[in-house]
Amino acid sequence: MYFSLEFQNDIPFTKMGYELVYKIKFSQEDVIKYSEITGDKNPIHTELEYAKNTIFKQPIVHGFFVGSVFSRIFGTEYPGLGTIYLNQTMKFISPVFLEEFYYAKIILSEVDIIKGKANVITEIIDSYGASILLGEAKIMHTIYSNQENTTK
Amino acid sequence: MYFSLEFQNDIPFTKMGYELVYKIKFSQEDVIKYSEITGDKNPIHTELEYAKNTIFKQPIVHGFFVGSVFSRIFGTEYPGLGTIYLNQTMKFISPVFLEEFYYAKIILSEVDIIKGKANVITEIIDSYGASILLGEAKIMHTIYSNQENTTK
Repeated sequence: MYFSLEFQNDIPFTKMGYELVYKIKFSQEDVIKYSEITGDKNPIHTELEYAKNTIFKQPIVHGFFVGSVFSRIFGTEYPGLGTIYLNQTMKFISPVFLEEFYYAKIILSEVDIIKGKANVITEIIDSYGASILLGEAKIMHTIYSNQENTTK
Repeated sequence: MYFSLEFQNDIPFTKMGYELVYKIKFSQEDVIKYSEITGDKNPIHTELEYAKNTIFKQPIVHGFFVGSVFSRIFGTEYPGLGTIYLNQTMKFISPVFLEEFYYAKIILSEVDIIKGKANVITEIIDSYGASILLGEAKIMHTIYSNQENTTK
């Protein structure tokens, strides 16, 4: 899958309002492989003829594959190694289609310095700016309790 | 991955309290493939030596891979084809380890006949009965608005 950092704002990375945006795209091959590995073989994800007769009119990416982008960001990008994933909510507002670009945005919305925890707003946005998937994550990482790192 | 129906209660399948339990297991190979496809390559999932030095002491399954079991159930088992996934929450209480059996339980907790929507409690339980992942899904399917099917 395509995954590339698109934007990062100037707020220190352990402070409320810190924002990162990644540009993402799921190919048909990605979705077929994901179906096989997870066993989630609903034909709406992989079969064009079946998908044509659904309300979405074309194959859609598994919502959990889309959401896994946030897990990827937290585990490997920000805050990265050592992150403990506590909680995730996801509202699937609209489908994500194959071979189209979307944006995965995270915004730090709350930081608990004592417990080393943070709340992060997690959103998938289409190329017209519409919100496609909206949720919130709660994560734990030493960077949030070790605040001298904030200006690094 | 291992995935097999373990238990189903006698409550009609569109009524509150209907319950299904699947026995599941994630192999090391499953987790490696999942890492590659999603790009979620945090070594805590795939590298034994790295994992030994974390609080979990051994590799753990990606939380989103575990959660994908619910998506698989809704899309392919119950209620199956035609399900529209509206919402999912997940509280990651404890890690899921590789090569161990767990249970994925769903319980129908609320049905809206007018809108054809249902709330479903989604839980991963270990072999000692402890809750490992707990959340709730909201789904939409014609079986919930088409209640003559309930005794099928």
